[in-house]
Amino acid sequence: MLPSSHAHQHPHPEDHLTSSAMLQDIVIGLSDGLTVPFALAAGLSGAVDSSALVITAGLAEVVAGSIAMGLGGYLAGRTEIEHYDAELAREHREVQEVPETERAEVDELLAEMGLSAATREAAVRELTSNPEQWVHFMMKYELGLEKPDPKQAPKSAATISLAYAVGGLIPLSAYFLTETPSEGLLWSAIITLVCLLVFGYFKSRMTGQPPVWGALKMAGTGALAAAAAFFVARQFS
Amino acid sequence: MLPSSHAHQHPHPEDHLTSSAMLQDIVIGLSDGLTVPFALAAGLSGAVDSSALVITAGLAEVVAGSIAMGLGGYLAGRTEIEHYDAELAREHREVQEVPETERAEVDELLAEMGLSAATREAAVRELTSNPEQWVHFMMKYELGLEKPDPKQAPKSAATISLAYAVGGLIPLSAYFLTETPSEGLLWSAIITLVCLLVFGYFKSRMTGQPPVWGALKMAGTGALAAAAAFFVARQFS
Repeated sequence: MLPSSHAHQHPHPEDHLTSSAMLQDIVIGLSDGLTVPFALAAGLSGAVDSSALVITAGLAEVVAGSIAMGLGGYLAGRTEIEHYDAELAREHREVQEVPETERAEVDELLAEMGLSAATREAAVRELTSNPEQWVHFMMKYELGLEKPDPKQAPKSAATISLAYAVGGLIPLSAYFLTETPSEGLLWSAIITLVCLLVFGYFKSRMTGQPPVWGALKMAGTGALAAAAAFFVARQFS
Repeated sequence: MLPSSHAHQHPHPEDHLTSSAMLQDIVIGLSDGLTVPFALAAGLSGAVDSSALVITAGLAEVVAGSIAMGLGGYLAGRTEIEHYDAELAREHREVQEVPETERAEVDELLAEMGLSAATREAAVRELTSNPEQWVHFMMKYELGLEKPDPKQAPKSAATISLAYAVGGLIPLSAYFLTETPSEGLLWSAIITLVCLLVFGYFKSRMTGQPPVWGALKMAGTGALAAAAAFFVARQFS
């Protein structure tokens, strides 16, 4: 699960991370949305005798999960921006107030890269000649922080949230279309496991992992979660 | 939500990310575990008249969510290691097979940092003199990849999973200790919102964010998810 913010500029033609961030968010939301509502509905199917109850609980989960993921993701994105801005202000201040300390840090980073003392002397002089460039160097190479795109967080949160809701409705649809919870469970498991295999396959392909293994991992996680929920719910019904 | 893998070595004394990775995982799991099971139980409380049903559905969700989060997190950690190893092998191959292309990439990265052509000439020679160091430079500074700790992923997954389960039992405990779903909902909301405020406060403090605002954001997300689940479940009951 590489979130889209991990995508990087990479000049290799065989780069695997070129698929759009939105497509990645859709697949993440869909596959997470398929798993937990499917498992919850499966769990309840072994414990209650009304499909309407399974549907009610399933929809409550889909709404709760979708809001928690969407709003949580949006707020986490805002926090990332605030964190970046706070670190940026601190680096600007430190470059002004303790330039010798900061210069020593640049030198240390270049030494870690493997540059000789002589080359470092020239390099430190050049990198610290311009405060903007200096701060940018510290942010990117000391702290490993890239400026977050302020439009990305809300867009990504909305996409994941919506995809989660769509994903969650897939396992529940089987209970709408059948008479009893056990019939619903049978069809829900068939539909959902097929979807998890397909999404696991595409998710792995998008991140350059072996797709068949990715498909099996995702379906296996869903199946295990559903089986565990089924046995626990049955104990308590 | 800064996952613990984002923690970095930083020599500043005022560094905010020194809190242990495990403590961060506990807080992440607890706060996520509080939110969705709370909202699901709240949603069902408006739709059914049996506390036992709310508890059964809630426990099924806790088990499903805990497995999905734990196993999902473990598999994502394994994928990260495989991704790192695959990229490492590729860089080793490219340094061998197309050294001139790779040397041009090092030069380009150093130019982006702000080094002059003269300094770059010496720097490229030094950085590419040792293949191990060269590959390490490409991995860290071109691809932004650090070697993942193979022990971290399973530990982190187990911690988050367990914390999620503990977090989920907090809102459900109110339904064990009361007679009707509406009494359960009242106490569940009180206990859970207090916990979300406390965990939101500590989570923000650990990542150096304003803690009061962090507390309100987390409790607000939980309250909104619960309110939405309540109204949707009531429509379908």
